[in-house]
Amino acid sequence: MLYPDLAVNEQGHLTIAGHDAVSLAEEYKTALFVMNVDKFRQNCRVYTDTMWECFGDDALPLYASKALCFTGIYRLVNECGMGTDIVSPGELYTASKAGFPLSKAYFHGNNKTDHDIEAAIDAHIGTFIVDNDEELDKIDEYASHRGIRQAVLLRITPGIDPHTHKAVITGNVDSKFGKAIETGQALAFTEKALKCRSVELKGFHCHIGSQIFDCQPFCDAADIMLGFIAKIKKQYGYETEVLNLGGGFGVRYVESHPHIDIAANIRDVASHIRARCEEFSLRMPKILMEPGRSIVADAVTTLYTVGSVKEITGFKNYVSIDGGMTDNPRYALYQSEYTVLNASRAADDCDYVCTIAGRCCESGDLIQENVRIAKPKRGDIIAVLTTGAYNYSMASNYNRIPRPAILLVGENGYKKLAVRHETFEDMCACDIDLR
Amino acid sequence: MLYPDLAVNEQGHLTIAGHDAVSLAEEYKTALFVMNVDKFRQNCRVYTDTMWECFGDDALPLYASKALCFTGIYRLVNECGMGTDIVSPGELYTASKAGFPLSKAYFHGNNKTDHDIEAAIDAHIGTFIVDNDEELDKIDEYASHRGIRQAVLLRITPGIDPHTHKAVITGNVDSKFGKAIETGQALAFTEKALKCRSVELKGFHCHIGSQIFDCQPFCDAADIMLGFIAKIKKQYGYETEVLNLGGGFGVRYVESHPHIDIAANIRDVASHIRARCEEFSLRMPKILMEPGRSIVADAVTTLYTVGSVKEITGFKNYVSIDGGMTDNPRYALYQSEYTVLNASRAADDCDYVCTIAGRCCESGDLIQENVRIAKPKRGDIIAVLTTGAYNYSMASNYNRIPRPAILLVGENGYKKLAVRHETFEDMCACDIDLR
Repeated sequence: MLYPDLAVNEQGHLTIAGHDAVSLAEEYKTALFVMNVDKFRQNCRVYTDTMWECFGDDALPLYASKALCFTGIYRLVNECGMGTDIVSPGELYTASKAGFPLSKAYFHGNNKTDHDIEAAIDAHIGTFIVDNDEELDKIDEYASHRGIRQAVLLRITPGIDPHTHKAVITGNVDSKFGKAIETGQALAFTEKALKCRSVELKGFHCHIGSQIFDCQPFCDAADIMLGFIAKIKKQYGYETEVLNLGGGFGVRYVESHPHIDIAANIRDVASHIRARCEEFSLRMPKILMEPGRSIVADAVTTLYTVGSVKEITGFKNYVSIDGGMTDNPRYALYQSEYTVLNASRAADDCDYVCTIAGRCCESGDLIQENVRIAKPKRGDIIAVLTTGAYNYSMASNYNRIPRPAILLVGENGYKKLAVRHETFEDMCACDIDLR
Repeated sequence: MLYPDLAVNEQGHLTIAGHDAVSLAEEYKTALFVMNVDKFRQNCRVYTDTMWECFGDDALPLYASKALCFTGIYRLVNECGMGTDIVSPGELYTASKAGFPLSKAYFHGNNKTDHDIEAAIDAHIGTFIVDNDEELDKIDEYASHRGIRQAVLLRITPGIDPHTHKAVITGNVDSKFGKAIETGQALAFTEKALKCRSVELKGFHCHIGSQIFDCQPFCDAADIMLGFIAKIKKQYGYETEVLNLGGGFGVRYVESHPHIDIAANIRDVASHIRARCEEFSLRMPKILMEPGRSIVADAVTTLYTVGSVKEITGFKNYVSIDGGMTDNPRYALYQSEYTVLNASRAADDCDYVCTIAGRCCESGDLIQENVRIAKPKRGDIIAVLTTGAYNYSMASNYNRIPRPAILLVGENGYKKLAVRHETFEDMCACDIDLR
C-alpha cells in the first residue's frame, strides 16, 4: 500500500482510516472523494510545527486554496493555525463564509479586476500579492479612497528552474506571473510600490514550481530573493519584513516517486536563509510558504463504480468508471500518474493490465493507462489514490455529469459529509428557460 | 473578419449580428458567451434540409449535446426539427426540462449505470446507443421488467482514421467506445442483441473522429458499416433499419483552416451510400448524423475584459483577461487554435504580438499564444471567436471562478439571456458548513 492509512479488511476490501471503502461507496454513492482529516491535519502540522521551530512564531504556512477549495476546508486550515492563499474573489467568499480570519489571507493572481480589489479591501483582506502595475495602481487608488494603507507583497520572478536547480534567463522569467529580477522590471516595480501612498510594501513573493522533492531549488530561490532584498535595502533603505517562498514540495503519487521529508527540507532551507541573511547583513524576514498539494493530495482517495470491462481482443482492456475527466482532468491535461486499486478485491493479485476510462463521450477521458489491478467486474469499486489536489477544484460538468461529494473520514469511525453530491437541478441553476 | 456576422461599427467596436460587443460586455459583464441564434439556426438548417433532401424525410440530424448543453438550447434544436444525442442522465434531464421530445433523443456513452438506464427507460427515451455487454444486459433486464421492447443501436468501431482516410487495424479499434468489426466482437455483440427479448435492435452507430473537412472518411466508414450490415443480413437475415454515421464535420477556427461546404459533403456521402446499398442489395437505411461542433462552434464568441498588459522586456507580452481555462480549457487540453480580436479597437491595426493569459493561478492557463491584435489596455474587451463547442460545456470553477453567462443575440436587436452568470453562492451550494 502506498500509504499507511490504507489497509485491507477481512472482506478483502480496501479500508481508509479504518473505513471500509466499499461500504462508504454504497452508503454515499460514487463518484466520491474520501478525505482522511487526520492525515490532512498531520500534513498541516508538518508545516506549522517545523516553520515555527525554524523561523519563529511569526512564520506562517498559507494553505493554497486552489488545490482544493470548499467551505469546510477553511475551518480545518484555521484550526491548524495556518493562513491561506486565495486567488479569486470566489475563494475569498468561501473562506469568509467559513469564518476564516481574512487578516491571514493573501490574495494572489495575475488578473485582479477593479471589482475584486474593491471587494477584497472592503472585506479587510490581510495582504495582496501584487502581480502587475495596473493592480498596484488600483489598490493604491482604492485604499486611498477608503483612507487606509493596504499591506502588499510584490510577486517577483527569480528565474529559477526547479528541475535543473539553476537560475535561468528563460523559463520562469517568461511567466505570466509577477515581475522578473533579470529584466530589471522587479526593481522598477518595487520603486513604484514604495512611492504609493496608500500601499504598505511588506515584502516579496516568489514561486518556483511544483512537485519539487528537495530543498535546493528553494535555497537557490532564497539566494536570489535575498540578493534582491539586499539590493533594495542598499538602494532605497527599505528593510523587507516578509519573504514568501511560495509552494512546491512534491507528493508521492506512485511507488516510483521519491519519498520526501518535508520537515527536514524546511530545516535545511531555514539554515540556508539564516546564513545568507547574516552574509547580507539582513534582518531575518518573516517567512511564509504556500503548500497546497503537499497538504491535501495524499489525504484524499476517489472511489468510483465500474460499469464495464471491455477486452479488445489483441489490443487493450478498458475498465469504465462512473467519473473521469470531469472530476479528475489531470491525466487529460498533463498525463499525470496515479495509483489505482480495486477496492472490492484489495487482497487479490494485481494481475489485470487495463486502462481506466472515464464516462465522458471523449476518447481522451482516461484516468490512467496500463495499470495493474485485480480484475474487476461491473459494480466493483475502484480507488484512485492521491486525488486531493487539483481534482475537485478543477472539476467540471462536462457531459452534464454532476460533481462528486466530499466525505471526511477519520479514526474512531469519524464520518462527515463536507460537500454533497451535485444534483441535476444544481447543474441547471443558471439556465433560464426560453419558453 | 473570419465570419460574415462580424463587423466593425463607427466607434471602432466589433459587432456581432449588429450588436456592439463592447456595449454587450458593459451591459452583461464579462466573461460572456454571445451566441448568434440566427447563425445557430442556419447551421441546423444545413443539416436538416440537406439530409431530408438526400436521404428522405425520416433522416435525422441529432444535435450532439456535449458540445454545448443548457436548457434553452434544446428548444432551439427542437424548433429546427433536429433530434438530439445525449450522453448522460444530466443531459437527459436538461433536454426533458426544456420539453424536448425524448422519442427523438439517443442515449450515448461508454458507461451507463444501472440507475441511468432505469431513469432513461422510465422517461421513455427513444433509443439507446449501446456500448457494451453489461449495459445491453441491463437494458434487456429492465425493459423486460417494464414490459416493453427498448429500441437500441449498437456502437460499432469501423477502424477508420479520418485523417489518413484509411481503415486501420490500430487506432480506432483501440477505443474505449463500442465494439470493433476487426476483432469479430461487433458481430458477437450483434448476435447477442438479436437474442435479447426486450431489446429491439434498430441498427448501428459509428463515429470516426472530429474536425473532418471532407466526405471521404464518412464514405469509407459507410463502406465498412454497409459491408458489416450486409454480412449481418446474410448471416442472421436481419435487415438494418437505422445507420447512424456519428459526427465530425470540421469548423474553421482560424483563417488558415479550410472552408467546408457541409451540404455538398452530405450530398456526396448520400450518393456514395445509395450506390453501396444497391451494390450490396440493401434497403437504404434511415440515416442519422450527430453534428455538435459544426452546429454551435462558430455561432458563439467569448468576450473578456483585459486586466493587465505585461511586457517582459526581451521575452514576451502577456495580456491577462478575466476568464481562461475555466471557461475554455481547450488550449490547455489540446493547444487548440482560436482567432482573437480586440473588440474595443477592431478598426485598428493588429500589430501587437501577445499571449492571451487566463486569470487562473496556473502557468498553463492560456487562451492562445503569439496572436496579433490591436494593442490593448486594462478595460479593453477581447473577443475570442468560435467558442460555442466544448467551452461552456467543459467549464469548471477552478480557482472558484464563476462560469460565464450565455447571451443569445440575433438580427433586429434580438437579445435574451439563456444562462445567467454563476454566483459565489451557486459555487458554494453543495458545501456543508462544518460548524
